[in-house]
Amino acid sequence: MQHSDSLPVIRPDIVRLADSRIREVAHFGMKLGGVTPLWFGEPDLPTPDFICEAAAEALKAGHVFYTESAGVPGLRQALADYLTPLNGRPIHADRIVVTASGMNAIQIVMQSLVDYGTNVVTTSPLWPNCGETVRIMGGEVRPVELTMGNDGWQLDIEKLMAACDGNTRALFVNSPNNPTGWVMPSEQQKQLLDFAREKGIWIVADEVYDRMVYEGNRAPSFLEVAGDEDPVLVINSFSKSWSMTGWRMGWITAPLGIIPTLLKMNEFNTASAATFAQHAGIVAVRQGEGFIAQSVARYREGRDIVYDRLSQHPRIRMVQPKGAFYHFFAVDGMDDSMAFAKRLVAEQRVGLAPGSAFGPGGEGHLRLCFASSPATLHSCLDRIEALLG
Amino acid sequence: MQHSDSLPVIRPDIVRLADSRIREVAHFGMKLGGVTPLWFGEPDLPTPDFICEAAAEALKAGHVFYTESAGVPGLRQALADYLTPLNGRPIHADRIVVTASGMNAIQIVMQSLVDYGTNVVTTSPLWPNCGETVRIMGGEVRPVELTMGNDGWQLDIEKLMAACDGNTRALFVNSPNNPTGWVMPSEQQKQLLDFAREKGIWIVADEVYDRMVYEGNRAPSFLEVAGDEDPVLVINSFSKSWSMTGWRMGWITAPLGIIPTLLKMNEFNTASAATFAQHAGIVAVRQGEGFIAQSVARYREGRDIVYDRLSQHPRIRMVQPKGAFYHFFAVDGMDDSMAFAKRLVAEQRVGLAPGSAFGPGGEGHLRLCFASSPATLHSCLDRIEALLG
Repeated sequence: MQHSDSLPVIRPDIVRLADSRIREVAHFGMKLGGVTPLWFGEPDLPTPDFICEAAAEALKAGHVFYTESAGVPGLRQALADYLTPLNGRPIHADRIVVTASGMNAIQIVMQSLVDYGTNVVTTSPLWPNCGETVRIMGGEVRPVELTMGNDGWQLDIEKLMAACDGNTRALFVNSPNNPTGWVMPSEQQKQLLDFAREKGIWIVADEVYDRMVYEGNRAPSFLEVAGDEDPVLVINSFSKSWSMTGWRMGWITAPLGIIPTLLKMNEFNTASAATFAQHAGIVAVRQGEGFIAQSVARYREGRDIVYDRLSQHPRIRMVQPKGAFYHFFAVDGMDDSMAFAKRLVAEQRVGLAPGSAFGPGGEGHLRLCFASSPATLHSCLDRIEALLG
Repeated sequence: MQHSDSLPVIRPDIVRLADSRIREVAHFGMKLGGVTPLWFGEPDLPTPDFICEAAAEALKAGHVFYTESAGVPGLRQALADYLTPLNGRPIHADRIVVTASGMNAIQIVMQSLVDYGTNVVTTSPLWPNCGETVRIMGGEVRPVELTMGNDGWQLDIEKLMAACDGNTRALFVNSPNNPTGWVMPSEQQKQLLDFAREKGIWIVADEVYDRMVYEGNRAPSFLEVAGDEDPVLVINSFSKSWSMTGWRMGWITAPLGIIPTLLKMNEFNTASAATFAQHAGIVAVRQGEGFIAQSVARYREGRDIVYDRLSQHPRIRMVQPKGAFYHFFAVDGMDDSMAFAKRLVAEQRVGLAPGSAFGPGGEGHLRLCFASSPATLHSCLDRIEALLG
């Protein structure tokens, strides 16, 4: 039971929500102590100094009051200026709503779209929090499994479309994908957009890893293929691109027609992200390209270190991820990834996330976040190989 | 219409939510320019330097990563140490969940309690955002009107209890109250708690103005009368006590039995408040008493300036608020507070909030935030009196 029997009713839909299986392993490991944590999805580098200094300056300048529920105008403009060349088409500032994290952006979007009796179609495996926001609103999550072939993770887009029905409010696409590193090709984005237009279904595109890619400067974005009035809500975050996880700041790019709804939802959820953090965000967006390039070079090195060693192991089946900073690999003979992850923690003091945390298609796998130093990664790989035998 | 007809479905319950009538006046005024804004509920003093400096230090110290969904342990302990003497009973840190604003605390609580077919009973007039969180979850808001007598605003608690039925999930009590300044006496809190225990109904107590009182050190709190396992969720915020509106940080004090639920909801809403802001929060809570005393002295001066002048006016009926920093006064012959507020903006460049923004019992009134300098208040009063005639 999640609550004392003597307390009044807590919503059954909420009590039923599973605890995070990633946190289950992490809590287990934290009690033991001395564990190298590769279980969460977080850059190990702190926010660059120039961004922290901008926040300190903003505090000194008195940017400590309430601000517009759409976000500080200077940040919306900075994001528009950032997105326009990336997408090769003008993205206007009035299409952008700043939110208190990418997570909160997903929450607000699901509040705006999902009711009891409706559903959201997603790919799977997937970071579990996305689905939970749908369940909080009483909706159904319909996962469509990606498959791992020699050419990497693949989506059968016909299956995704076939999973939709008259009660489907949104297609949720997280690309680059946590946990698999799958990147949806531009051609599939166009197909899905045509389908969404025809059927009157929203596309919710979680593109928080868009700059963490190992070919080109950025993953294909729905913003490149969608017109200003298309039913596409693109979610992004400052967490990954600029190592700002603890800042809790994200944004939504949306057609103008839904902006008033998103502003209301922002106001009734958090009002806004922290005002001085938004001022620092302007500096991140305008001066952060060098940092992004350095980060990606570092992640690429980590990615290759892990791949070069683990892919040689007879029990491991894996492909190089095209984006994000995870390896999501299958372990032959491991049918309980939670038990295996706990053994790895208990016996080798290495913390990975169990594949079962990510829904259908996840069991049999482990997720390793390679946003870490080469020395740390090598040490962890030694210990993973020791347990694999 | 709130959205383009060509877009897919937005939830009807959300589209139906009223736009804020406070913002309607404010937007009207901002276009005109030169308006003195007393329409929002915000201290006009910035966050004190020692808190801003603590945030800058925390940034330098690298507190920029994800943190526990319950909040930074040091902040939970600081809040426990703060609440224990205030309530005259031990409040343990494990009963506290730090949230990304008091607003988000309300949102998380309503997500945890409210379903379609259920209702929440509140007092009215009331800051509208509270009710909107209930409506977002598909619930019904049942307002019970306060009445203004010679002895100030009063609640008929029998009416509040009579408004509850088998589908009532929560009683929402905001005391000190925005907009009226009403403070629920401890005796009524005890009565309501007995009722809530017996009926199995949650009390959600929004106590964000608890330190903004004009008798004693703090308004009566449900935490003083409730045991650790009672069905009481107390919401508080850093915004008012420490002038930290732009920081977006609040907390919930709850019985242990619902803490796991609130942690999940925190994770799926924002994960946490900004990590470095939480570190600054520790300093605010531990060293902020002098600032609170100064603020209240300042607000008391503003309160009295407004009362001494407006209460003399033949068209005005008002009482001294016991808490918060608003005067909510009735204007004889004014039956459209929105129209009057707009005239006041257009003709006199003074921004007040229309009483109709606050639901049943609000029409015929105006809300004036007196957290402002004496000179500003006098100038606004001159102009209000000019329009009143």
